[in-house]
Amino acid sequence: MRVSVLFSGGKDSSLAAILLEPFFEVELVTCSFSLLPVGDVAREAAEKLGFSHRVARLDMQVLEKAYGMIIKEGFPRSAINHIHLAAMEYLASDVDVRFIADGIRRDDRVPVPDISRIRSIEDRYGVSYMSPLKGLGRSAVNELVKQHLVIDEGQSENVIKADYETELREFIRIRAGAQRINELFPSHIQSHVIERKKVPSKEVKTICIHD
Amino acid sequence: MRVSVLFSGGKDSSLAAILLEPFFEVELVTCSFSLLPVGDVAREAAEKLGFSHRVARLDMQVLEKAYGMIIKEGFPRSAINHIHLAAMEYLASDVDVRFIADGIRRDDRVPVPDISRIRSIEDRYGVSYMSPLKGLGRSAVNELVKQHLVIDEGQSENVIKADYETELREFIRIRAGAQRINELFPSHIQSHVIERKKVPSKEVKTICIHD
Repeated sequence: MRVSVLFSGGKDSSLAAILLEPFFEVELVTCSFSLLPVGDVAREAAEKLGFSHRVARLDMQVLEKAYGMIIKEGFPRSAINHIHLAAMEYLASDVDVRFIADGIRRDDRVPVPDISRIRSIEDRYGVSYMSPLKGLGRSAVNELVKQHLVIDEGQSENVIKADYETELREFIRIRAGAQRINELFPSHIQSHVIERKKVPSKEVKTICIHD
Repeated sequence: MRVSVLFSGGKDSSLAAILLEPFFEVELVTCSFSLLPVGDVAREAAEKLGFSHRVARLDMQVLEKAYGMIIKEGFPRSAINHIHLAAMEYLASDVDVRFIADGIRRDDRVPVPDISRIRSIEDRYGVSYMSPLKGLGRSAVNELVKQHLVIDEGQSENVIKADYETELREFIRIRAGAQRINELFPSHIQSHVIERKKVPSKEVKTICIHD
């Protein structure tokens, strides 16, 4: 069974892929509007994790609509949710995709796709959507990240990342100027994967004895 | 890292344990009020899964209170949530327990512990709570169960299980008579683990190459 994991190069989508790896053939997919080389940034992180990776080009109208949402609301929630759902729809419409996953955590405030929208995508396309971190709190995620990843954390504007925010910020810069970005996005910590740690042999043995 | 998984012998808590196995030393814990031999039923299922298992005896007052709740409400939700939270508190208060997990799924209606209660337990005891299936829909869970488990499914009154409902039903039978049970519990499908399937070697290799 193969799973397509929406991948930003950050710790959450990386950990989601690692948690699914023992049970699925993992493919990382990074959505981009080709405004910035986010696909390259994500590919580099994917190579460090040892997963196959591809870039999915989303329709520019999705970013246009997201821009309209953030300008109207004054904060990014609906815009990021809109892009995330569009990415899910993009993957779900691929006849070769049966399992879609992302790195959404229990304590995330955004993106948090509405459950009715999720079920609609699952029903319309016959796919299964998984958020392996949805039932994990911050402390559990941090512990697992510490066990499996070396990450670089910093303010969102300083860390190179391939998430939806990156290109949405760039689009705002082009349309409304750099000043507008900081008015619309709260400054928050983001992460970027530097390296994957070697799996402790005990855990490897736990799996290998099944062989 | 060890995780204590609340275990009923059903497919959900079994799958939760299997999903955590590559990353944690898994211990299955079945809570019982010693009203019925649910501990033995769960131990048998735990042995088939290949996990260590122990029975935790909960205070009878927890069941008394749950009984009061279901009689007052006329349906089991608050009662089951009350017992589940008591089981989480029991594990969290164990100084050797750092990670607690259960088999709650995205589409479950009960038990669904309130997020503020979960955070309160995490903060008061310094533990991390995980529901590995919380971000998985029915189709994803069914597919993974099919891959890893042989189960027996049937109406809740016919399948031998070690969940909270089993002893709550028995307590209602003792206090209010068997007739009352069917008035309070909707008849629903439950599962019991018969056997664990061999992990496909492809997935095993996926892990072993990291060694």
